[in-house]
Amino acid sequence: MSKLFGGIEAGGTKFICAVGTASGKIDNRVVIPVTTPDETIPQVIEYFKNIHLKTPLSALGIAAFGPVDPNPASARFGHITSTLKLAWTNYNILGAIKDAFDIPVGFDTDVNGAALGEYRWGEAQGLNTFIYITVGTGIGAGGMVSGKMIHGLIHPEMGHMHIPHDHKRDPFAGVCPFHGNCLEGLASGPAIMKRWKVDSVLDLPDNHEAWELEAGYLASALINCILMLSPQKIIIGGGVMKQPNLLSRVHPKVVDLLSGYIKHDTILKNIDKYIVLPGLGLNSGICGAIALAEREFKGSLIA
Amino acid sequence: MSKLFGGIEAGGTKFICAVGTASGKIDNRVVIPVTTPDETIPQVIEYFKNIHLKTPLSALGIAAFGPVDPNPASARFGHITSTLKLAWTNYNILGAIKDAFDIPVGFDTDVNGAALGEYRWGEAQGLNTFIYITVGTGIGAGGMVSGKMIHGLIHPEMGHMHIPHDHKRDPFAGVCPFHGNCLEGLASGPAIMKRWKVDSVLDLPDNHEAWELEAGYLASALINCILMLSPQKIIIGGGVMKQPNLLSRVHPKVVDLLSGYIKHDTILKNIDKYIVLPGLGLNSGICGAIALAEREFKGSLIA
Repeated sequence: MSKLFGGIEAGGTKFICAVGTASGKIDNRVVIPVTTPDETIPQVIEYFKNIHLKTPLSALGIAAFGPVDPNPASARFGHITSTLKLAWTNYNILGAIKDAFDIPVGFDTDVNGAALGEYRWGEAQGLNTFIYITVGTGIGAGGMVSGKMIHGLIHPEMGHMHIPHDHKRDPFAGVCPFHGNCLEGLASGPAIMKRWKVDSVLDLPDNHEAWELEAGYLASALINCILMLSPQKIIIGGGVMKQPNLLSRVHPKVVDLLSGYIKHDTILKNIDKYIVLPGLGLNSGICGAIALAEREFKGSLIA
Repeated sequence: MSKLFGGIEAGGTKFICAVGTASGKIDNRVVIPVTTPDETIPQVIEYFKNIHLKTPLSALGIAAFGPVDPNPASARFGHITSTLKLAWTNYNILGAIKDAFDIPVGFDTDVNGAALGEYRWGEAQGLNTFIYITVGTGIGAGGMVSGKMIHGLIHPEMGHMHIPHDHKRDPFAGVCPFHGNCLEGLASGPAIMKRWKVDSVLDLPDNHEAWELEAGYLASALINCILMLSPQKIIIGGGVMKQPNLLSRVHPKVVDLLSGYIKHDTILKNIDKYIVLPGLGLNSGICGAIALAEREFKGSLIA
């Protein structure tokens, strides 16, 4: 029988828990709202305990909202660190789950998890250098370089990249509490809603100028990703990308901004296959958490 | 006796050739001006042939100006590709050297080579995720993520990153023939010289406003590097960085632009040890070429 893995997609507002196998098939999903660790974590543990009693899990994986400490050599490995969600500041989420189960527990950021999910079962299969970006309430990114997840000093925070902002065209100051008009400040869901005074980004009609502006900001960020990391593919998901024509507006702007500097057919001729929506749709995150479990179980040095 | 390695720092205007050992000690340096492959490459080969006859070399390494094809699986691996130096367009530099010597020949970009040199003997020893940037005639960067050199679709071209440009403060349009006001367009040596009408950037006095502006552009680029790759250290060299107080002007601007978003003492308290000049000084490049030879000889999977 296939090994069974448990995944925890630990988002800032809800935790998705599910089980799955190496085939990528997901089962038995549950959504737990996020309040405090004392309330939320016991529900997560109970959910997996019930499964584990009937069908033993081989490993668990946590793909957590951040910032986190993803460095296994650090004393704070597996902690959520300086989050604005104060009940979770410096919370050892990995420790809490490890204490409750005598099986391996994998851990990474939510976006690195989603990237790993796409690597196992989605759009990044067979690649070794790619980026996964989500554009929603915030903008986050993770990915892999030459077969290794990007970690470093802490982990990427690409959403806060600084990009050109034409104040004449777009006098909106941005919503990022740290930087104002960084990428997240200008192009996240809350930025779009506040700039155009709507309650949902999808309330804006397809021909609204909001989308050309948004596509331009995303293209600026994506060319910086391309120039900095030379990814073989960029996967872009999140709630804002649900706008049906946004990605196809981004594509020509990326080519245009690169101005022929990078002469590679993948970009010049196949941009629509180079910057793509997640292959796993809305499941990148939970699949990623399961992929983290699988990786931890294998003790694999890949990724 | 220590193995002897040969290194070729293949720059756009001159090739530096030298030999060295695993200790990082360099010897017997020669500079060959770059004209055409037909003229330049035979001089390189003759130089190493003469050494090789007396003291056999174990391997050679080439750190080449680009763009290059650094993908060993590609048919054009080891070629200089779409360079504006037309005599070198699509030139198989790796093949030319390999044909002349029956020893392993390593190959990478000039900046990835320099990064590897700093990893072996300079400021990046013991790290696994860092960036090496050179600010001179152009702006280039290479580096390592989780122990692997950054390659991907092609290789990084961070110099062409797009950063905020306040046209009111700095109406200069930039010198990049592709993008105008990308990082290289605004902050390379030629950009500084053209903006301020000087023949050498070091003609500008230390209190000239040029340096505050330059420090700001570099800080913008560096925070994007930090946010995208989370490097454990950034090494920044090249001719422009010879201005004695430029780096110390960059440091507080980086902290300021990050606005407390990344809470790590390495950045908040030790920025002067986080963004540093090359440990190998002007030798990062040639040491890097020798490190590429050493790596190829070892057949090592690291980096």
